[in-house]
Amino acid sequence: MYQDEIIVDGLQYSRWDRAYFESLKESGVTAVHVTLVYHETARETLSRFAEWNLHFERNSDLIVPVMTMDDVFSAKQRGKVGIFFGAQNCSPIDDEIGLVEVMRKLGLLIMQLTYNNQSLLATGCYEQEDSGVTRFGKQVIEEMNRVGMIIDMSHSAERSTLEAVDLSSRPICISHANPTVAHGALRNKSDEVIRALTGRGGLLGFSLYPFHLPNGSDCTLEAFCQMVADAASAYGAEHLALGSDLCQNQPQRVLDWMRNGRWSKSLDFGEGSASNAGWPAALPWFRDTRGLKNIYKGLRDIGFSDEEVAGILGRNWVRFLEAGLEPKK
Amino acid sequence: MYQDEIIVDGLQYSRWDRAYFESLKESGVTAVHVTLVYHETARETLSRFAEWNLHFERNSDLIVPVMTMDDVFSAKQRGKVGIFFGAQNCSPIDDEIGLVEVMRKLGLLIMQLTYNNQSLLATGCYEQEDSGVTRFGKQVIEEMNRVGMIIDMSHSAERSTLEAVDLSSRPICISHANPTVAHGALRNKSDEVIRALTGRGGLLGFSLYPFHLPNGSDCTLEAFCQMVADAASAYGAEHLALGSDLCQNQPQRVLDWMRNGRWSKSLDFGEGSASNAGWPAALPWFRDTRGLKNIYKGLRDIGFSDEEVAGILGRNWVRFLEAGLEPKK
Repeated sequence: MYQDEIIVDGLQYSRWDRAYFESLKESGVTAVHVTLVYHETARETLSRFAEWNLHFERNSDLIVPVMTMDDVFSAKQRGKVGIFFGAQNCSPIDDEIGLVEVMRKLGLLIMQLTYNNQSLLATGCYEQEDSGVTRFGKQVIEEMNRVGMIIDMSHSAERSTLEAVDLSSRPICISHANPTVAHGALRNKSDEVIRALTGRGGLLGFSLYPFHLPNGSDCTLEAFCQMVADAASAYGAEHLALGSDLCQNQPQRVLDWMRNGRWSKSLDFGEGSASNAGWPAALPWFRDTRGLKNIYKGLRDIGFSDEEVAGILGRNWVRFLEAGLEPKK
Repeated sequence: MYQDEIIVDGLQYSRWDRAYFESLKESGVTAVHVTLVYHETARETLSRFAEWNLHFERNSDLIVPVMTMDDVFSAKQRGKVGIFFGAQNCSPIDDEIGLVEVMRKLGLLIMQLTYNNQSLLATGCYEQEDSGVTRFGKQVIEEMNRVGMIIDMSHSAERSTLEAVDLSSRPICISHANPTVAHGALRNKSDEVIRALTGRGGLLGFSLYPFHLPNGSDCTLEAFCQMVADAASAYGAEHLALGSDLCQNQPQRVLDWMRNGRWSKSLDFGEGSASNAGWPAALPWFRDTRGLKNIYKGLRDIGFSDEEVAGILGRNWVRFLEAGLEPKK
C-alpha cells in the first residue's frame, strides 16, 4: 500500500509556506530533497538556512529536518514530512575548501558541482566546451567524499560527469534528469553516463519536469513508466528513483533567478525560449506531490514488483543516502 | 588530585597550533573555551570554523570538539583536550536574528553581546554612555535563550549587563573578569553586577590577564586566591570559575586586532596606553595553562574545600554549561 511505503521526492524547489507543507503531508510523501540554493554565496546560504529554521520552528507539526536516514524513519512514524537539503550549485562554498565541512554540518547533504554553466569545480551542461573537473573540483570531490556530502551531477556536462564518477571514491547521483534515449534534452543523460554512474553504485532520479520528458507536458503516465522500465532493464531498478524537480507555486521571477542568477545581463531562457519563457504546463497526472501516487500505481501496472516499486519510490534514495552521508573513518 | 579533576579554562585566545595543543594536553586541562572570533562577520566566522575543523582533523590525537558536556567527560576519559567555542562580540550574527541558531548549530556555544564598544545589541564597557540593551538585543537574548547559546557580558557596560541579567530567562555568565572591589579596571565588575548575576544562577570566571588584577603582573598567587575567597564569601563558591584570558604566543598584531578591529583609524590602546601598548608581562605563577595547577593548590591552601576547588577549577563551568546549552523545549 502506498501509504505504508517510505516515499522520497529527490528534488523540489517549491514555494515553501505552511499551506504547501500541509499539502506535502496530505500527499503522503515521507521526505523531500529541498533545493536550498541555486546561486547563493556562502553568506546568503546562511540566510536560507535561517529561513528554514523558522519554517521548522513554526511548522513543527508538519515538517522535520533530516540529517540522517533515522530522521526519515522517525518522520514516517510521527506522520511528518522530512526535509533534507541540497544545493543546485557549488556557490555555497565560495572558493573555500573548508566550507564543504561547514555546510555539511549545517545540513547541506547534497551539492551539485555545477548548474548549467562552468563553475569553479566543473562544466555545466549548457556550455559549448566541457573541460572536465577542475583542480579545485578534484579537491572538493575528495572533501565531499570525506565528510559524507553527496555529489550530484544533474546539471553537469558529459565529460565532467564521467570524470566525477571516476574521481569520486563513493557513489554519486543525478538527482533529477532522464535518459537522453527517452528525450534528447541538454539536461538529460547519455547511456554512457548513466551506465558509468549506476555501475559504480550511483543513483538516477527521474525528473517530472516537462522539458525533460518525451512529448513535454503531453507525456503520458504510461510513457513515463515505460522510460523507467527501459532504464531498469538497462541499469537495474535498484539504481533508480525519483527527483520530480517540482517548482510548485513559484512565480516567473524564481524561474528567471534559476536561469540567470546574477551572471547574465540579457535573459537566458534555459530549456525554454523567448517565445516560451514561462513555466511549462503541468502534467495532468503530476500536478503536485500527490502525483507520486499515480507513479506508484503506474510502475506496478507496467510490471515492476512491489519491492522494485518501493525502491524507486523511496527506498533506493534512503539506501543510497544512508551509505553516502556517513563520514569516512 | 589535580589530574583526576575536570579542569576547564573558561577563556583563551592563544596561537593555535600543534605545539600549543601538545602543551595544553600536557598541562592537564580537560576543556578550554576558545575565542573563535573578535570582530569577524558571519562570513568570516565560517572561515574560522573551517580552520578549526582542520585543526581537529590534523590533531585528533590531542583535541576534540565539544558540543555538549558529555563531550567534556569523554575528552577526559580519552586523555584529550576538549575545545568549545565562543565569540567575544556579536559580529558573527551580522544584523540577522536567524544567525543565532545557525551559529549555534555550527558550535558557537557562547556569545558576548558587546566587545568594549557599542554593538547592535548593547553597550560595551569602554563607552561613555551606556544605553542598555537595544531592540535587536532583546530579540537576540530571547533567541539565545531559546536555542541554548550562553550569554556572556565580560566586555559589556554596567547597565547593559544588569539589563541582560534581567531580560534573560536563563542564567548568564561573565566568562573572564574580576570584581572591581579587588581592582578598579573598566573591564572588571561591580558588586551590584556580580550580585545580580550570581543571584540568578550566573557564573563569574576569574581572569588571569594582568590588566584585570590587583598589582597587575606583580599580583601574587595568594592575592589572586584571596580575591576568589572574598568573592566566595560574598556570592557563593558555586558561582565562581576561571577564564584565564590567556593569549599565549600571540604577536602584537593580534592585540591590535582585538583592540581596534576595523573600527579605528588611530590605534586604540584598550587597557594599555601609548607608552604601554604591548602584552603585559606574564604572571610568574601563570605563565601558561600549567599555571592552573598552581591555582588549584593556592585555593586549597587558602581554605577552600576539595569540592569547592573542584567546582572553581571546572565543575562549575560544566554544570552551568550543561543547563545553559540545552535548547528550550
